[in-house]
Amino acid sequence: MKIALTAKGWEIPAWIENLNKLLPEAEVRLSDNLGNLEEIEYALAWKGDTAFLNDLPNLKAIFSLGAGVEFLTQEPNLPDVPIVRVIGDDLTARMCEYVVLNVLMHHRHSLRSLKLQSRKDWTQIPDAAAEDFRVGVLGIGVLGLAAARKLQNLGYRVSGWSRSPKEIADLETYHGADGLDTMLGKTDILVSLLPHTPETEGILNLDLFKKLAKDGPLGGGVIINAGRGKLQVEDDIATAINQGILAGASLDVFEQEPLPSDSPLWELPNVIITPHIAAVSAPYATTKCIVEQIKRNEAGEPMVGIVDRGVGY
Amino acid sequence: MKIALTAKGWEIPAWIENLNKLLPEAEVRLSDNLGNLEEIEYALAWKGDTAFLNDLPNLKAIFSLGAGVEFLTQEPNLPDVPIVRVIGDDLTARMCEYVVLNVLMHHRHSLRSLKLQSRKDWTQIPDAAAEDFRVGVLGIGVLGLAAARKLQNLGYRVSGWSRSPKEIADLETYHGADGLDTMLGKTDILVSLLPHTPETEGILNLDLFKKLAKDGPLGGGVIINAGRGKLQVEDDIATAINQGILAGASLDVFEQEPLPSDSPLWELPNVIITPHIAAVSAPYATTKCIVEQIKRNEAGEPMVGIVDRGVGY
Repeated sequence: MKIALTAKGWEIPAWIENLNKLLPEAEVRLSDNLGNLEEIEYALAWKGDTAFLNDLPNLKAIFSLGAGVEFLTQEPNLPDVPIVRVIGDDLTARMCEYVVLNVLMHHRHSLRSLKLQSRKDWTQIPDAAAEDFRVGVLGIGVLGLAAARKLQNLGYRVSGWSRSPKEIADLETYHGADGLDTMLGKTDILVSLLPHTPETEGILNLDLFKKLAKDGPLGGGVIINAGRGKLQVEDDIATAINQGILAGASLDVFEQEPLPSDSPLWELPNVIITPHIAAVSAPYATTKCIVEQIKRNEAGEPMVGIVDRGVGY
Repeated sequence: MKIALTAKGWEIPAWIENLNKLLPEAEVRLSDNLGNLEEIEYALAWKGDTAFLNDLPNLKAIFSLGAGVEFLTQEPNLPDVPIVRVIGDDLTARMCEYVVLNVLMHHRHSLRSLKLQSRKDWTQIPDAAAEDFRVGVLGIGVLGLAAARKLQNLGYRVSGWSRSPKEIADLETYHGADGLDTMLGKTDILVSLLPHTPETEGILNLDLFKKLAKDGPLGGGVIINAGRGKLQVEDDIATAINQGILAGASLDVFEQEPLPSDSPLWELPNVIITPHIAAVSAPYATTKCIVEQIKRNEAGEPMVGIVDRGVGY
């Protein structure tokens, strides 16, 4: 079996090494040196130039190496084979860590607290309890639901929003445009784990920020975007923070990455910036997931995580 | 019913207000203006001068307003009535928040990450997974066990140590001096929630720090002390951090509080200092717990949380 691989900006050797270990019968070829194109049965890709995918007549499936798939779904001429999104326990666990850490940092005033420490100032900032915070999760797929459960476990009052209706035990759910407005009105901390689709682009804008609850423990909403940068309007975030419409934000993804050094986001008060590391795909864990799917496909079983190209995730 | 109240350094009105609301039949008297001493049936205290307790002939119980009781148990002449420790869901939840937040901050390199942000630097720090971290909890009473469960829920490998043997489902436990050394040798992050007793005083010292695992994701141990300041030897913490024996620390309690401004702890690298706010007793929630115990006692039912004076907690 021959596998094509491309991963823009990532270290390639770890991926090849793990594939060799977990699927020794396969030969991995880099996308710029594919040899006989007819031999390639699977392709593993992360951004970069995906045009080579069109030249593979016997391709059976395309795997995204990260949680996002928009670099594939937004490609109009992609061959008509399944696009498979990797969601493994490792990626889910890491995303949950990021979400819990950032909710707690805003709740427990970590930035102010560290500033007091730097001034050797013993001032005690009063904290509300977790149950005083209403956390709304945008996107309750695998990642969103897992994060919601971890937050509930710590005592937060959590609700979830999705495009289409979902019934989930012990979770207040909303859907559609009306449902979104209703949830925002009772949300103190908004966590976005939505995929990037034409519908979600720019959804985190000033209009939305103004709909968040103002009667919560921080006196204004907090947004946490660990999903996709194109969902947020960064000028609006700056405006909302500077005008006190938002009480804080944690941003792991950006309209342009790396975030340009002249972006005002870097220095906004109460804003935590991380360089797209909320849930990094670990080569071993991700490869393990992909190899499982390849083996299922070869055995004639359905693969898990096939993307609906119509909706984009 | 008359209740005596003292709370050194805390705002008194919120406590009186909550007692009046939850136990309207009681009259609250401050410890420096007690009136007829024979009328006082219960005393609520937090540090300060506790000598007045000896003058109350009809005292039925003494409640500590915080999680600690050493200001009572170390008082040799206290009247022989039950000392009751308040552990409510609110206090437990807040302690869990603090522990989870601080474990995550060390695991996910928050201090380094915030420093990079301040320099507008996009460098991505690789993170290990939660399951790569072995967290040892010293003291597995109500608080320690709750914190252990929250950490397990996030994927950490958790074990617990206590003075005497404990069998707890799904938790690796150790006890006694030998058990402590064994656990330390496989602990990357050590969380101390031990009470302050003659046995535990100074237990967090250089000798202990050297026993922590060195083969973990951070290449050295991290200590988190949210219990009692007298457990830690602060000179040893400074030495251990400066010599790389400890990779980091989170300290909420100190030998002397407020932490003096000339303490070197404030500026140690990778050390997070908070002003004894890990789990602040909220007047409403704490009062509710105490009133429940008073009502149990008045109804002839056993109170929950009675301190064993012999062991000191």
